[in-house]
Amino acid sequence: MTDTVSEIRDAKTAALEMAALDTGVKNSALNAMAEALEANRSVILEANAEDVRDSEGKVPAEILSRLRLSDSKISDMVFSLKDVAALPDPVGETMSATELDENLVLYQVRCPIGMIGVIFESRPDVVPQIMSLCLKSGNSIAFKGGSEARRSNRVLFDILRDAAVSAGVPGKAFVLMETREDIAEILKLDSYIDLLIPRGSYSFVRYIQENTRIPVLGHSAGICHVYVDADADMDTAFKVSLDSKIQYPAACNAAEKLLVNSKVARYFLPRMADLFAANGVEMRVDGRCKPHMLGFDVKDASDDDWYAEYDSRIIAIKVVDSADEAIDFINSHGSHHTDCIISENEERQRDFVRRVDSADVFINASTRFADGYRFGKGAEVGISTGKVHARGPMGMDGLMIYKYVLVGKGQTVKEYSGPDAKKYTHRHVDAEYRL
Amino acid sequence: MTDTVSEIRDAKTAALEMAALDTGVKNSALNAMAEALEANRSVILEANAEDVRDSEGKVPAEILSRLRLSDSKISDMVFSLKDVAALPDPVGETMSATELDENLVLYQVRCPIGMIGVIFESRPDVVPQIMSLCLKSGNSIAFKGGSEARRSNRVLFDILRDAAVSAGVPGKAFVLMETREDIAEILKLDSYIDLLIPRGSYSFVRYIQENTRIPVLGHSAGICHVYVDADADMDTAFKVSLDSKIQYPAACNAAEKLLVNSKVARYFLPRMADLFAANGVEMRVDGRCKPHMLGFDVKDASDDDWYAEYDSRIIAIKVVDSADEAIDFINSHGSHHTDCIISENEERQRDFVRRVDSADVFINASTRFADGYRFGKGAEVGISTGKVHARGPMGMDGLMIYKYVLVGKGQTVKEYSGPDAKKYTHRHVDAEYRL
Repeated sequence: MTDTVSEIRDAKTAALEMAALDTGVKNSALNAMAEALEANRSVILEANAEDVRDSEGKVPAEILSRLRLSDSKISDMVFSLKDVAALPDPVGETMSATELDENLVLYQVRCPIGMIGVIFESRPDVVPQIMSLCLKSGNSIAFKGGSEARRSNRVLFDILRDAAVSAGVPGKAFVLMETREDIAEILKLDSYIDLLIPRGSYSFVRYIQENTRIPVLGHSAGICHVYVDADADMDTAFKVSLDSKIQYPAACNAAEKLLVNSKVARYFLPRMADLFAANGVEMRVDGRCKPHMLGFDVKDASDDDWYAEYDSRIIAIKVVDSADEAIDFINSHGSHHTDCIISENEERQRDFVRRVDSADVFINASTRFADGYRFGKGAEVGISTGKVHARGPMGMDGLMIYKYVLVGKGQTVKEYSGPDAKKYTHRHVDAEYRL
Repeated sequence: MTDTVSEIRDAKTAALEMAALDTGVKNSALNAMAEALEANRSVILEANAEDVRDSEGKVPAEILSRLRLSDSKISDMVFSLKDVAALPDPVGETMSATELDENLVLYQVRCPIGMIGVIFESRPDVVPQIMSLCLKSGNSIAFKGGSEARRSNRVLFDILRDAAVSAGVPGKAFVLMETREDIAEILKLDSYIDLLIPRGSYSFVRYIQENTRIPVLGHSAGICHVYVDADADMDTAFKVSLDSKIQYPAACNAAEKLLVNSKVARYFLPRMADLFAANGVEMRVDGRCKPHMLGFDVKDASDDDWYAEYDSRIIAIKVVDSADEAIDFINSHGSHHTDCIISENEERQRDFVRRVDSADVFINASTRFADGYRFGKGAEVGISTGKVHARGPMGMDGLMIYKYVLVGKGQTVKEYSGPDAKKYTHRHVDAEYRL
């Protein structure tokens, strides 16, 4: 058994302790973690500077800027840890209660999943996010960050874990993995790891999904659409389309396609083309767009463009004849991540919401809002485009499951069976199981 | 593409229509299905008689009795279909609502998963259960029953689907598979099937889990424990232990192990042995039990007995010195299905609930209550011992997921970013999104 495997086995055992931790202990730990970051700013920045130095010239500027920490990024981490401490404790919450019969009450009680695995890319900011969400939700965690951030991740991890331990949290609940081999190894650990959350490129996430029996939550692609309806407010359409594309083009929730109803194409497309051009967005368009975009530098969209995730300042634009056509196009070409309708027509909004099969379906708001922090979850551990467990941005909710607690007074099933069977009342009751 | 694959592809397409069906249409369909069964009793019983004739002498009596339909079993099906019609429609329910800012509200809206696959053994009663739960929850369904019940399943399926279609439900949403080859085939269809629920033997469920990328919910083993605590009420302990073992020994929720606190072993074991003996239960016991069971016909438990699922009138009995020892034993030897504590001590009850890592944790009630119907879910599609999505008996709740609906007035993320960023309010609101 390698060191990593035995650490993960120990973390799985510690998960039972984590599940039973008092809220007070968890919150003290989170506050201690915030203070420890505050007290160790220079150590963190030094380790990070070494990581940045090693990567300079070797990775794109964008990756470098995500890797680089600053005093203000550390302040954000401190703030976010205190934020998670202030969130209600989800463990032990009664989700529903049903009286099966007199003195026989069934409670559905929220509890942690157990042992979570997270694999992400080169952003050290994710370390306190993941550690705090797992701790507050009572889960053990094994994670691996990008190798460019190795020193930063290690120093953050050690500081945070030691602070948590000082408050009474079992240190074995946290595992930091550092090598590529560790990833191949944990994919086999379906008896220890209950849920795996990979965050990264399309091919990386697909690789994980295809090579493990552990349940995987996440998304491989982010092909998001904005549909401008016949009844769109034009100002809203311009603002939301532009923001969805350019506010942060590398994000999975940035728009890659713009579908425009033929009834408004002539009003919408010229001004939109102007805005895109002014913001350096390359436009790849279908034949029906072109008459409305004369004089603009546009390219012909190829078949591949309708399935492409650019993650950069490129957008594909298509004219459609109805909301139905837009909905069908989105369901068949998108990635079930985040899709938006711009329309003032409430019936059409509802139809879009009902029939677009995506995790996030937005009305008159930028696709860029699809994010755990913006959704009010404190932080996010990932975004899921799967159809089970959790969908869309996942905060602590994605790290929880429930157990059924049945409290009786010696009842047997025999009494409720056969010709003289007692009847179940099956009455919803407003009761809580106090753990 | 085989017929089955193309039927499943069509059912996946029909899932989008199913998700948008009106509650009225679904309920009319369920009532029409009930009436159709009522009107076709003789056809159903004739087909079933042929299935039974083919199996007589070839399968154990118990399987034969599960296969055999009767007028009263058909009445139960009719009743259960009407029951599901009367349940509230889960589709479109607002689970939570958060104001992100003025005029920017996020709704978490319940919706169907999409396309469900179910594989079960030789009980034709399951056909209307599964079809009704999938229909009411707005899902498409492909399922395969036991080959012994082939004719019964087919006639039930045709009657039920035709009745649903007459009420306006798309007939393509229902697929009945009939061959073993179909199973191997659907395991590859991860692009069409969103969730797979296998119900059957340990090896069958393990085979499914290990041979598909489709998320699988279910349980391979049902190794349930009853722990008799030092502070147990003895009458409760006798009643619940006996019922948990003998009320239906072949069920996954029947108790296989009995753990007895050493402080009460001398009072509990002799009378319990008497009850087990009188009910034909074979006892396999550890060395510490034997002094209290003198004169009874007991066997020595082997190491294997502590991990065994008997599904028959056999129970393994062990003396433990504390609730802690019982909890550790259950977590390390059980199958995370259903485990029960018999105790009047509330602190010890709570500790058991908190620390036993099982889907169902019961206090002073028979493990046999772990069942979708008894839990008030109308019926059940399966019982899950997994840690994600759904746990324990699953009714329609296990067939649902949610989408996030964000309703804005043209807001952009740019406004909420940078030095002059607008602040999110992140206020929980009591609002509903009306689909």
